[in-house]
Amino acid sequence: MTVPFVGPETLVRQRGKSFAARIGANESGFGPSPKVIEAVRAAAGELWMYADPENFALKQAFAAHLGLQPAQIAVGGGIDGLLGLTVRLFAQAGDAVVTSLGAYPTFNFHVAGFGARLLTAPYRDDREDLEALAVAAKRENAAIVYLANPDNPMGSWHDAAAVKAFVEAIPARTLVVLDEAYGETAPEGALPPSTWSRPNLLRFRTLSKAFGLAGLRVGYVFGPPELVGAYDKVRNHFGMSRIAEPAALAALADRDWLDSVIGRIGAARSRIAGMAARHGLASLPSATNFIAIDCGRDGAFAKKVLDGLIARDIFVRKPAAPILDRTIRISVGPEAEMDRLEEAFGPALAAARAA
Amino acid sequence: MTVPFVGPETLVRQRGKSFAARIGANESGFGPSPKVIEAVRAAAGELWMYADPENFALKQAFAAHLGLQPAQIAVGGGIDGLLGLTVRLFAQAGDAVVTSLGAYPTFNFHVAGFGARLLTAPYRDDREDLEALAVAAKRENAAIVYLANPDNPMGSWHDAAAVKAFVEAIPARTLVVLDEAYGETAPEGALPPSTWSRPNLLRFRTLSKAFGLAGLRVGYVFGPPELVGAYDKVRNHFGMSRIAEPAALAALADRDWLDSVIGRIGAARSRIAGMAARHGLASLPSATNFIAIDCGRDGAFAKKVLDGLIARDIFVRKPAAPILDRTIRISVGPEAEMDRLEEAFGPALAAARAA
Repeated sequence: MTVPFVGPETLVRQRGKSFAARIGANESGFGPSPKVIEAVRAAAGELWMYADPENFALKQAFAAHLGLQPAQIAVGGGIDGLLGLTVRLFAQAGDAVVTSLGAYPTFNFHVAGFGARLLTAPYRDDREDLEALAVAAKRENAAIVYLANPDNPMGSWHDAAAVKAFVEAIPARTLVVLDEAYGETAPEGALPPSTWSRPNLLRFRTLSKAFGLAGLRVGYVFGPPELVGAYDKVRNHFGMSRIAEPAALAALADRDWLDSVIGRIGAARSRIAGMAARHGLASLPSATNFIAIDCGRDGAFAKKVLDGLIARDIFVRKPAAPILDRTIRISVGPEAEMDRLEEAFGPALAAARAA
Repeated sequence: MTVPFVGPETLVRQRGKSFAARIGANESGFGPSPKVIEAVRAAAGELWMYADPENFALKQAFAAHLGLQPAQIAVGGGIDGLLGLTVRLFAQAGDAVVTSLGAYPTFNFHVAGFGARLLTAPYRDDREDLEALAVAAKRENAAIVYLANPDNPMGSWHDAAAVKAFVEAIPARTLVVLDEAYGETAPEGALPPSTWSRPNLLRFRTLSKAFGLAGLRVGYVFGPPELVGAYDKVRNHFGMSRIAEPAALAALADRDWLDSVIGRIGAARSRIAGMAARHGLASLPSATNFIAIDCGRDGAFAKKVLDGLIARDIFVRKPAAPILDRTIRISVGPEAEMDRLEEAFGPALAAARAA
C-alpha cells in the first residue's frame, strides 16, 4: 500500500506534542483572504443543503478568472481528486504513464491505484527533464505524461516557451497533464497563457496554495471541452462541499489579497535563502511557496538535518529521490513561523554535522 | 452519460426563479445542531491547512458512536463517494452487480462508471424484495448486491431479522452493500445492532440526513477491518475538508439535537400524510426523512402532480421506475416549508385531475 504523504497530525500523535511551525506541506500560513473566512462563516448555516451538482457558479468564476468558457472547466476535490479521475479516464490498466523520478507522489498513487504502469525520467539539474519525459512518452506510447510547472518538490520551473515546445513534442495519443498548482507564484513568463490550448493538454490549478485554502478541497482543470466534459461521466455529482462555492468566489474576487500574499511568499523565500546562506548552504531558485535548501552532502545527511528540525518542533519535509534527496523542502510562512525556523535551523544543522 | 439527479439549483436557473420550499432532495431543513454551525465558524480560520489524512479523530468518533473499533471504520465524501470507491474496489469490469429496479441511482452511476453489469430485481409491495435480490445475486454470481434499509425512494424498510437473514443468504463471494443513510430515522428494530458483522458485509452511514449536514460531505462505512482497510488503498488521502472533523465531532456530540430532529421529522411526516389523506390519497409508511404519496393513478398522473408542485415553487421529486412512479416523494421540513407545501398541494392535485 502506498501512502503519498504522512500528515503532520500523524507526527503530532507519534511525538506526543505539537509543532511550533507547520511549514512542511506547502500550505499557506498567510491564510485565505479574510473575506473568504467571512464567506465561510456566513455560509455555515447552509450546510444542510447539498451543493449545486453542476458547480455552475464555480465554473463561471474559474472561466472568468482564466478568460475561458465554462465548458473548458471541470471542478473537483483539489488537484489530487482530479488527478485520480484523470488517471481513471485516460489510462487503462497496463498502460504506460510517464512522470519524473521524485515528482508528485499522489499522481503516482493514482497510477498504481488504477493499475497503470509508471515509468520515470530522472530530474536534470533539479528540474523536470522535458526532453527525457518526451522521449519516454514516445518510446512507451504513454497514455499520460505528467509535468508540474512550477515543480514540486524542487520549486524549479521551465519558461512558457519550453513548456509549449514540450507539449507539442508529445504525440496526440498521449495526454499531457500539466500541473500548475503553484502557477500563481511563478515568475512572469513561466506559464503559457491560460488561453493556450492543445487537443491533448489538460492544465490543473488549485485554491490550496497561494489562495490559502488547502482545507477547502477545490481544484480545477481546464482544456478542450471534449476532454474536460469527460469528468462529468465519472465524478461524484454532489462531491463538493456547500461552502466551496462561496469560499472560492470570495477568494477569486479578492485580487489584492492574492497579490499581497504572493509578495509575502517571495519575501519569506528570500528570508529562508538568506538563512541558509548564513549557514553556508545554497538554496534552489523557487517559483513556489516553498524552497529547497541544498544541505551540501548526501541524502543521509539531509535526513539528519530534517530530523533535527522535526525534533525541534519544525514540521518540514524532504524529497526522497536520489540527488534531489540532498535537499530539505521548507514551505514559507508568516514571520512567527520563520522566526521559529531560524531558531531551530542552526542547532539542527550543527547536530547533523556533529553526528 | 448518466446524471443521477438534477439539482434544485439547475431547476432554479431553468425556471428563472427560486423555490418557496426545498423539500425534494431529502436534505434536513431542520439543519444541523447550532453547535455544529458554531464549530464550523470557529474552524473557518483553519482552512489554510489540509485535514488530517488519516481521519484519526473522525474514525475514533464514529467508532465510539457505534460501539466499534476505529479499524472497523472508513470515512469518505458522503456515502456517494464511498459507493464509488466500493464499486471500484469490489467489482471488476463485466462483473454482475445486483440492485432493485428504481433504487438509489448514484450507486448505479458508479456501477456503470466502472464498467460492471447492473442487474435489477423489481420492488415487491413498495419494498426492496430481499428474496429476489438474493436469488439474483446467487444466479448471477454477483460481485456486489445493494440494499438500502430504510429504502430510498419509497421510505419503506425491513426489520433487522429479515435483513440479517438476507445477508446470511448471500454467498460469501458477493459483497453486501447495506446503505443505512436513513438509519437514524428508522423505527426500533429495523437495523441490526451496529456490532452485528459478517465477513462480506459493509454498512454505510452519513451525516447528510438526520444530522442535517448534506453539504459537509461526510459519510462512513463500517465492517470487517479486512474490507474497510481496502479504502485506504484508493481514497484521496487529503480528500476531506478541514471543517469536516470539527463539524462531525460537534454533530455526534449533540445527541439532544439529533433526538429533537428525529421527533420533528416524525411529526412532519404525519403532517404530510394527513394532508394527503385530506385529498383522498394514501401515503406509504416511512422510516426516513421523506414520504412517498401514492397519487392513486399511473406514473403520468403522478408526474402531472409533481410538475404542478414545481410550477407552484415547491421543489420535490418522484421515483421513475414502473409502479413506484405512481408516487411523489416529499422530504420533510420545518413548519414554513410544510405550510408552502399545503398551500400548493390542493391546487396542483386539482390541476392534475382536471388535465
